[in-house]
Amino acid sequence: MAQTPTKPEGVDPEVWKKALVASPRELRHLIRAGQYNATTSGLCAGYAQANLIVLPREQAYDFLLFAQRNPKPCPLLEVTETGARQTSICATDCDIATDFPRYRIYKNGELVEETTDVSSYWRDDLVSFVIGCSFSFESELVEAGIEIRHQTMGCNVPMYRTNIDCRPAGSMSGKLVVSMRPIPYNQVVEAVQISGAIPKVHGAPVHIGDPSVIGITDIDKPDFGDPVDIHEGEVPVFWACGVTPQSVVMNSKPPFAITHAPGYMLVTDTKNINLKF
Amino acid sequence: MAQTPTKPEGVDPEVWKKALVASPRELRHLIRAGQYNATTSGLCAGYAQANLIVLPREQAYDFLLFAQRNPKPCPLLEVTETGARQTSICATDCDIATDFPRYRIYKNGELVEETTDVSSYWRDDLVSFVIGCSFSFESELVEAGIEIRHQTMGCNVPMYRTNIDCRPAGSMSGKLVVSMRPIPYNQVVEAVQISGAIPKVHGAPVHIGDPSVIGITDIDKPDFGDPVDIHEGEVPVFWACGVTPQSVVMNSKPPFAITHAPGYMLVTDTKNINLKF
Repeated sequence: MAQTPTKPEGVDPEVWKKALVASPRELRHLIRAGQYNATTSGLCAGYAQANLIVLPREQAYDFLLFAQRNPKPCPLLEVTETGARQTSICATDCDIATDFPRYRIYKNGELVEETTDVSSYWRDDLVSFVIGCSFSFESELVEAGIEIRHQTMGCNVPMYRTNIDCRPAGSMSGKLVVSMRPIPYNQVVEAVQISGAIPKVHGAPVHIGDPSVIGITDIDKPDFGDPVDIHEGEVPVFWACGVTPQSVVMNSKPPFAITHAPGYMLVTDTKNINLKF
Repeated sequence: MAQTPTKPEGVDPEVWKKALVASPRELRHLIRAGQYNATTSGLCAGYAQANLIVLPREQAYDFLLFAQRNPKPCPLLEVTETGARQTSICATDCDIATDFPRYRIYKNGELVEETTDVSSYWRDDLVSFVIGCSFSFESELVEAGIEIRHQTMGCNVPMYRTNIDCRPAGSMSGKLVVSMRPIPYNQVVEAVQISGAIPKVHGAPVHIGDPSVIGITDIDKPDFGDPVDIHEGEVPVFWACGVTPQSVVMNSKPPFAITHAPGYMLVTDTKNINLKF
């Protein structure tokens, strides 16, 4: 690896040492035990990371259809059986309710709580949508010698709500959310090709260059995550983001939803290479 | 094009002339008017063709989840709004109930009728799943100089029920169905690469060689379609097939389902090249 991520603020140095060498299962156990509570960017290189949206079965058909119609922001890695807390396809020994470092609870489209464990919110009618994450292809970009700025800065990736409408499905609609990485001009094509080879973790970028073209007015003020420095000779490159379901929840106002907190992902047992086919 | 398909038996020569030069919309009109009623293999080269399964909304969530879990046999090109007969994504001016050359009606898993128009069966609670078809990548194989045997023989592609279980979803389960094309040894790798570049029309093969490995006992007796000659120096290559939903319907026995007749596809307005991203 050409680059080791910088320890995120607030993480215990001993826990960080463990996290850096952990297998996906070991990292999920660290998170489940409440020891690791920060962004997962840069951890478990080569393994797919995942976004989350949990909805009652009543709204699940509409969201499943929304994901089918919007595969770039919502590439589904797994949809659980109704009521199941355990995943069975993307990982084993994996509890949806505890293994993300941080969650958000929405009621009628309003964010009402952030928490590190949603066990007490679980219900028998909930369906979990586990969605591919661009953190997955970051390890391949790093392998190719492309610096991932938010990793070297030790912060969260910047994410923006765009002016691009997703294709609606039933009760679900909303704007596309994108993540941004500054890339030197001479590595942009490589970044497109590397990420484009893994459509199940968002694939190729949706936009390269001038942020205003997709409705972003201030690149230094992301709607989610942290701002990062853009150096001379670099261009901002935007990928469809699995935080889009949160924009959909805020817009469509289902009675109840659980999501991950942006940047605080599930690390799955699925290798990126197996998502290429 | 290196190869012109042979006129299928029973097609009027004047209609065949029209079909060979028709745009997708023109071909749908010929079919809607009852003039063309044969396999669509080899027609409208470069445009995606599609399989169909129509289910009541009651079973639609399970099938949508089944398709998400089994993307190789069931790559979804479009899922219509409940009750809609018109497509809006893969084609316009396209009536699901009339624009396939032939349909099958299933009740409780039993095939009860084959017909060329299902208007009289239509209900407000039906959801249509339009599924990618391997006929789409055939035109690219032909461009690359690979002979498509069932096209040169003027018959339907042979399809087989395998011993491979699909991943079940709720009430839906069944065996994988595959289509087979004999390919000369020195073109097999090329065939894998060309088809693998279009995952939304089944993508790369699921099996190459000995049919018994996937539970096919007699290659000359396909479960659907027609047998084709396999010449000396050719190997049978098997692709996941959009007839799989019919195997699922027969196994899972939903109260009502409409499918296309194997080989009698919808020709969409979507270009294959746009399914590569």
